[in-house]
Amino acid sequence: MYVGKKVTRVDAYDKVLGRTRYTDDLCDKSAYIARILHATIAHGRVLSIDTSRAEQIPGVVKIFTCFDLKEKHYFPTAGHPWSTDPAHQDVADRLVLTEEVRFYGDDIAAVVAEDEVAAARALAAIQVTYQEYPFVLDVQEAMQDGAPQLHEAYPNNILAHTAIRRGNYQEAIQEPGLIKVESWYETPTVQHCHIENFICYAQMEGNRITITSSTQIPHIVRRIVGQALGMDWGRIRVIKPYIGGGFGNKQDILYEPLCAWLCMELGGHLVKIDIPREDTFVSNRVRHAIRSHIISWVRPDGTYAARKLEAFSDQGAYASHGHSVCAKGAGAFPQLYPCENVEVDAYTVFTNKSVAGAMRGYGIPQAMWAVECHTADVAARLGMDPVDFRLRNLMPVGYIDGFSKNELYHDSFRQCLRKAMAAIDYDQKYKAYQNQTGDIRRGIGIAVFWYNTAVWPISLETSSCRMVLNQDGSLQVQLGETEIGQGADTAYAQMTADALGVPLGQVHVVSCQDTDVTPFGTGAYASRQTYTAGFSIRQTALLLKERILDYARELTRMPPYNLELSAGNIVRTTDGRVLMSLGELATQALYSTERSQHLTAESTAQIKSNAYSFGCTIAEVEVDIPMCRVRLLDIVNAHDAGTLVNPALAEAQVHGGMSMGIGYGLSEQLLFDPKTGRPLNNSLLDYKLSTFMDHPRLRAVFAQNPEPTSAFGTKALGEPPACSVAPAIRNAVRQATGVAFMEAPLTPHNLFRRFSEEGLL
Amino acid sequence: MYVGKKVTRVDAYDKVLGRTRYTDDLCDKSAYIARILHATIAHGRVLSIDTSRAEQIPGVVKIFTCFDLKEKHYFPTAGHPWSTDPAHQDVADRLVLTEEVRFYGDDIAAVVAEDEVAAARALAAIQVTYQEYPFVLDVQEAMQDGAPQLHEAYPNNILAHTAIRRGNYQEAIQEPGLIKVESWYETPTVQHCHIENFICYAQMEGNRITITSSTQIPHIVRRIVGQALGMDWGRIRVIKPYIGGGFGNKQDILYEPLCAWLCMELGGHLVKIDIPREDTFVSNRVRHAIRSHIISWVRPDGTYAARKLEAFSDQGAYASHGHSVCAKGAGAFPQLYPCENVEVDAYTVFTNKSVAGAMRGYGIPQAMWAVECHTADVAARLGMDPVDFRLRNLMPVGYIDGFSKNELYHDSFRQCLRKAMAAIDYDQKYKAYQNQTGDIRRGIGIAVFWYNTAVWPISLETSSCRMVLNQDGSLQVQLGETEIGQGADTAYAQMTADALGVPLGQVHVVSCQDTDVTPFGTGAYASRQTYTAGFSIRQTALLLKERILDYARELTRMPPYNLELSAGNIVRTTDGRVLMSLGELATQALYSTERSQHLTAESTAQIKSNAYSFGCTIAEVEVDIPMCRVRLLDIVNAHDAGTLVNPALAEAQVHGGMSMGIGYGLSEQLLFDPKTGRPLNNSLLDYKLSTFMDHPRLRAVFAQNPEPTSAFGTKALGEPPACSVAPAIRNAVRQATGVAFMEAPLTPHNLFRRFSEEGLL
Repeated sequence: MYVGKKVTRVDAYDKVLGRTRYTDDLCDKSAYIARILHATIAHGRVLSIDTSRAEQIPGVVKIFTCFDLKEKHYFPTAGHPWSTDPAHQDVADRLVLTEEVRFYGDDIAAVVAEDEVAAARALAAIQVTYQEYPFVLDVQEAMQDGAPQLHEAYPNNILAHTAIRRGNYQEAIQEPGLIKVESWYETPTVQHCHIENFICYAQMEGNRITITSSTQIPHIVRRIVGQALGMDWGRIRVIKPYIGGGFGNKQDILYEPLCAWLCMELGGHLVKIDIPREDTFVSNRVRHAIRSHIISWVRPDGTYAARKLEAFSDQGAYASHGHSVCAKGAGAFPQLYPCENVEVDAYTVFTNKSVAGAMRGYGIPQAMWAVECHTADVAARLGMDPVDFRLRNLMPVGYIDGFSKNELYHDSFRQCLRKAMAAIDYDQKYKAYQNQTGDIRRGIGIAVFWYNTAVWPISLETSSCRMVLNQDGSLQVQLGETEIGQGADTAYAQMTADALGVPLGQVHVVSCQDTDVTPFGTGAYASRQTYTAGFSIRQTALLLKERILDYARELTRMPPYNLELSAGNIVRTTDGRVLMSLGELATQALYSTERSQHLTAESTAQIKSNAYSFGCTIAEVEVDIPMCRVRLLDIVNAHDAGTLVNPALAEAQVHGGMSMGIGYGLSEQLLFDPKTGRPLNNSLLDYKLSTFMDHPRLRAVFAQNPEPTSAFGTKALGEPPACSVAPAIRNAVRQATGVAFMEAPLTPHNLFRRFSEEGLL
Repeated sequence: MYVGKKVTRVDAYDKVLGRTRYTDDLCDKSAYIARILHATIAHGRVLSIDTSRAEQIPGVVKIFTCFDLKEKHYFPTAGHPWSTDPAHQDVADRLVLTEEVRFYGDDIAAVVAEDEVAAARALAAIQVTYQEYPFVLDVQEAMQDGAPQLHEAYPNNILAHTAIRRGNYQEAIQEPGLIKVESWYETPTVQHCHIENFICYAQMEGNRITITSSTQIPHIVRRIVGQALGMDWGRIRVIKPYIGGGFGNKQDILYEPLCAWLCMELGGHLVKIDIPREDTFVSNRVRHAIRSHIISWVRPDGTYAARKLEAFSDQGAYASHGHSVCAKGAGAFPQLYPCENVEVDAYTVFTNKSVAGAMRGYGIPQAMWAVECHTADVAARLGMDPVDFRLRNLMPVGYIDGFSKNELYHDSFRQCLRKAMAAIDYDQKYKAYQNQTGDIRRGIGIAVFWYNTAVWPISLETSSCRMVLNQDGSLQVQLGETEIGQGADTAYAQMTADALGVPLGQVHVVSCQDTDVTPFGTGAYASRQTYTAGFSIRQTALLLKERILDYARELTRMPPYNLELSAGNIVRTTDGRVLMSLGELATQALYSTERSQHLTAESTAQIKSNAYSFGCTIAEVEVDIPMCRVRLLDIVNAHDAGTLVNPALAEAQVHGGMSMGIGYGLSEQLLFDPKTGRPLNNSLLDYKLSTFMDHPRLRAVFAQNPEPTSAFGTKALGEPPACSVAPAIRNAVRQATGVAFMEAPLTPHNLFRRFSEEGLL
C-alpha cells in the first residue's frame, strides 16, 4: 500500500534538476508579446484613446482598444463548474477590453509587439481621455443610497445577500442574565503572490484556437474562452503545463480570452501575455476584504443563547467568484458553534477596487478571523479558559449539516486541540503568560477552523479519469484535476497504485492537461483534488482491473474470481501463486493474433458527498510594546484531514498554508489611495509578504480519522492550513497585552494605534 | 455522407499559412545538436577513434564512440508490429554505434555539440583507424562461396530464401510446342527523398525519456527504443508531430535509439539529431535493388504452361525489413498471372551497401518491373496484342488466395484497363505507333499491378481509436495510425462524421500522436491507413453513439431504438423530428447534477481480413534515339482502390505515386563506387529525382468497386500508384524503338548502351 506513505514526489527529480517546463518555457520565441493598458482612474468612461504615437514605435505590431470590439460577449470569470441552470450561472460582467472603467487598473487597451521593450514603450505612449465618475472604496459606504453605482443590475452595489435565520434571535436575547459581547472585525485585501505570474499564449490551428495557460482549471478556461469569444467551445483547446502556484488566483479566467481574441484578430499568430507582478496585484484577483459585525449573547455558564453575524464582503469592481466566498464564511458561522438562535446577514458589495476572487480558504480565513477573535473575546469577557469555552460550544460529534449532509464523525476538534496543545506545551505556557507587565510580553493563542472539502451540493462535482496500460505493465493516468505544485500527481500515483495493485513506479501520471484529450474534470480548487479525483481513480482502476483479469482468464484458464492483481502480478488467490506479470499480460493482449486488445479504461465519477475538515492553530508570540512589534515564537497547526495520502506532502501543504496565514495576520495588505483609488503598494517591495525570515519552525500535527464517504479516506487539506493562523496570532497578542485587535494584519501601524488607544504607549 | 466527397483537407489551411508545426519547429532552441560519424570504408572493423582534436573545438559537449557502449542491446529497425513469437520477430542486428563496419556510412561515433557548426567541425576532426576487410557489392556475387561475409548467422549472406512450388514445372515444360521466353530484369537502388529529412529529439522527464520524432510509427518507435536501450517500454514516450513525408523510410527506426541514448548519457539534456540530406541517402534506408530472372513457357494460343521466377534482393548491410519486401513481390508472381505450374525462388542477400528497407510499394515496384516488362516481351514474342494477352492470363474474377483469403470480387483489371485506355486514346495510338522508323519515335505502353492492402495474416493488424465528445457536440478522434502528408486525418474525419452522424466540421482529428495517451495503432505503412483505421473508427463511433443514445433516452424519454444521431442531432426516427442537438445533449450530460457523464468511447479493432487492390498505368513516350532521351508525353493511372473516401485526395495520392514511378523508370538510381563501396551521388544535385519539370499532366482514373470486407468499402491506394509506372514507360519505349530494356532506369547512359547494342546508333 502506498496511500499513507511518505513517498518522494513524482516530479521532485525534474524540479530539482530544473527540467520542469512551465508555460513560458514552452512558448515559441516567435510569439508576439501583448501588454495590457490599465485604466488610471477608479471609475468613469473612456472617451478616446490616442494610439498614434505608440503605433510609431518600432516593433509594435498592432494596438487594440476597447473601441475595437466588434461584438460584445460578456463573460464570467469565476472558475466554477458550469451549470445549465441560468439561475446558477456566474455573473457575466466582463469584456476582453472595456470602455466602462470600474477600478484603477481596469483593462482598456492592449499593445501587441514583437518584443517586451516595444510593448512597454508603446504602453507608455498611449494617451487616454476619460470622463470621470465619483467612486467608492468602502464596502458599507457603497451600500448607502446615493453612493456611486458600479453595475446597473445591482442597486446599492449589492451583488448578493444571504440571510440565515435559526430559532428566534429577538426572543432569545430577552433571556435574563445574558452577557452581550459585540464587536466589529475586519480583514484586509491581500493577494495570492504565487511565484509564477499568470501567463498564457494562444495560437490558431485550422479554425480552432489553442491556448496554453498557467491555470488551475483548463477545462473551465475552454468553456469561458468560448463564451468570451462567442465561439463553439469545441473549437477551443486549452493546455495546462506545470505551473508555479495559483492559490485560487488561477481559478479565475484572467487573460485567456483577451489573448485568444488578440490572436484571432492577428490571423492566428502566436500571442503571449505574461503579466508583470505589479499588474498581478491590481488586475488579477485579490482576497475579499470582509468586515464582520458579531453580537453574542452568552449565559454566565459559557453557553450561547443567541448569535448574530453581519458580514460585508468587498467584491471590488466585478463579480468574479462573487458572493460564494462570503456565503461560505457565513455558512460556517452557525455550524462551527451551533446555537439555537442565530441570525446571519452576509452582503457582497461592489466597490471601485481590484476584483476579489478565489483565494486559499475561500471566505474561511476571513470568517475565522472574525469568529475566532470573537470567541477569544467572549471567553475573556466570561473569564473562562478559551479552550474550555470552545470545547463547550464547538460542533458536537454526530452533528449533521442539513444541506450538505456532512457529518462530524469523530471527535476531531478535541483531538486536534489536544495534539496541538501537547506539541506546543500550551497549558504550561498559557499559565505562565497570564497577567504580564513590562515592555516585552509573551502570549499564546488558539483558533480553530471549519472547512468543507469539495463543492457539492452547491455545485457539480464530477471527475473523469482514463488509464492506459503499456506493454511493460506500467500505465498512464489522465485526469482533469490539476497539479498546481501541491503534489496532486504524486497523490494520484499513490492512489492508482493501490487501487489497481501495481508498484508505484509503474504509474505515470500525465501531468499536463490538454482539453482535447484529457478526460473532463473541473480542475484544482476547493481542496477537492484528492477527494474528488480519488473517486474517479478508484472507479477507473476497478474497471481496468476487471478488463485485465478478464483477459487473464483467457491466458491462465483460471476463473476471474480466483485471480487478483497484486504488486503488478496476476496472482491466483487460492494458492498465492504468481501466474504472470501484468507486463506479460499487457504484451500478450496487445500483440495477440487471436484477440488483440489495447487495455485501457475511462470513467466519470460524479461525487454526491462532501466532507468536513477541522483543525486548529496555536501560536506563541512575543510583543515588544514600545517597538510595536510582534515576533512569532512558535506555531503549530493541527488538522484532521482524514487519511493522509502522503504525510510528507501533507506537512508541506500545511507549512505553506501557515506561512500564508502568518502574512495574513502580521503584515500583508494591499492599500488603495482614498483620493484616487490607486493601489499604493502593488509590488513585492512594498507589499509585505511573509517570508522564511518571519517564520519560526512551522509545525504540523495530524489526527487522521479516515473520512467514511471518501474513496481513500481523504478530505480537505489544501486550504485549511491558511484559515486559523491569523486569529491564533491575534489571540496570542491579546493574551500578551490584553489588547483585542479587530483588524488584521497586526502591523506596527496597527499596534501603535491600538496600544495608544489602550494606554500602553 | 462525407465518404466519397472531395472535402478540403482538414490541414489545408494551416499548411497554406505555414502554421503547421514539424519536429524542428517544436524543438527548444536549447537543444544540443548531435551529428553522426559515418564509416568511410565498406567493410571492416574500427580499431581506434581519436577524438582528442575534436574535443578541443569550442562548443563540443561530448563525443561518443562505438567503444563507449556499456551494454550491447542489439535491436531490429523494421517498423513491423511486434510479435511475441520469436520466430516471427525482426532480426536484431543493430547497435546505436558499431565497431563492426558493414557499409560505407555505418554509424561509428556521434558528436554532441552546442550548435551545428561545432558539431560539423568536430566530425571533421575525428581520426579513425580501421582494419579493412574485403567487401562485396553485387547481390549474386555475395551468395557465392568465398564471398566476404557480413553476418556470421547468415552463411553466403543469405538473409532468407522463399520457395514457392505449384504443379510440376519440370514436367510442364516438356509439353510440345511451347515457346520459351527468358530474361533478366533489374531495378536500381533508390531513395525515398521525402522533403523533411529524418529528425528527432529526446529529453528526460523523471526517469522516463520523451522522444519527438519525424516517424510514421510512433508506437513502434517506443518499443524499439526500449529494446535498444534495454529499458522498460513504458518508460519511453514518443511524440509524432506533423511530418514532411516518409514513404517508408520513416517506417524504420532510424536514429531515435541513438538520440535517446545520447540524451541519457548526458543526464537527460535535450539532444536533437537532424539528418543532412547527404546522410539520408546513405545511412537511412533505400529501396531494395532486385535482380529477377523469369522464364515463361507459353503456348501459341497465348496461355501459360509454366512460369519460373528467381529474384535476388539486395538487402545492403543490415536486415531492416529484410526478406518481407522481396517475399511480397515473389508472392505477387503466381497470383497476378495464375498458372498451374510455377516455381519461385526469392533470395534476400546482404551486401556491403546502404541498408534497404520499406519504400512505397514494398517489393511490388520491383516485381512489376520484372513481370510487366516480361509480359510485354512475351506478348511481343507471340505477336499478340499486349492488352489481349494480359486479359487472357490475369487473375480471374472470383480468384481466392489460399493464404490471405483475399478475393477478386470484381472485374477490376478489365475495368481499369478500359478506363485508362479510353482516357489516353490507347487503341488509336497503339495502332499509329506500330512499326516506326526515324530518329524520333513514339510509343505507348501498359503495365498492370497487384497489391495487398494491409499486412494480415503475415502480421498483426490492430487499430485502437478513442473519441472524446465536447460540450458543443464536436469531438476529438485519436488514432495510432498517423498522418504523414497523405491526408489520413481528413479521411478519418470523413469516416467518423459518417459513422457517428455528425457534420464534418464537428470532427477534430488529433493529428499528433503521443504514445502516452494515443490509443495503440502501429502507424502508417502498407497502405493500411483507411482500411484498418476504418474498422476502429466505425466500431468506436458505434460505441459512442450507443452511449449518446442511451443518454438521449434519459433526456427525451424515447426508447433508443426510436432514436438516431443524424447531422449532429438526436432525431426521433418515427417522425423525423429533431429532439435536441448533440451539443445540447453533451452539455446536459456533462453538467448534469443527476448523472454527470463525460461521453467518450475507446475500442480496439483487430482486423483479420485483407484486400486486393488492382490497377494499371498507360504511358506514352517520345524517344529521341540519337540524343538517347525519353520524353514522357502522357500518362494515366487507373485504380480500383474500392470506395474513395476523398476523390481529391485519392487523385493527389496517385499523382505523387506516378511522379515517384516516373523517376524510378527514367532517372533515379543511387550509385556506389565499385572500388570503395562509397555512394557516388548522395545529393539532390547528383541524384536525379523526378520533378514537376519531367512530368506531363498526371492523370488518375478510378474504378470504384466497394471492397466488401472493408468498414467503408476502401482498400489500398497509398502505394499502388508507384508500382506500374516504370514498366509502362519501358513498354512504351519498347513499342517506339523495338528495344527491350531490362534495367531501370532508362537513363541516357542506359539508352546509349542498349541502342548501340541493338544497332540503332
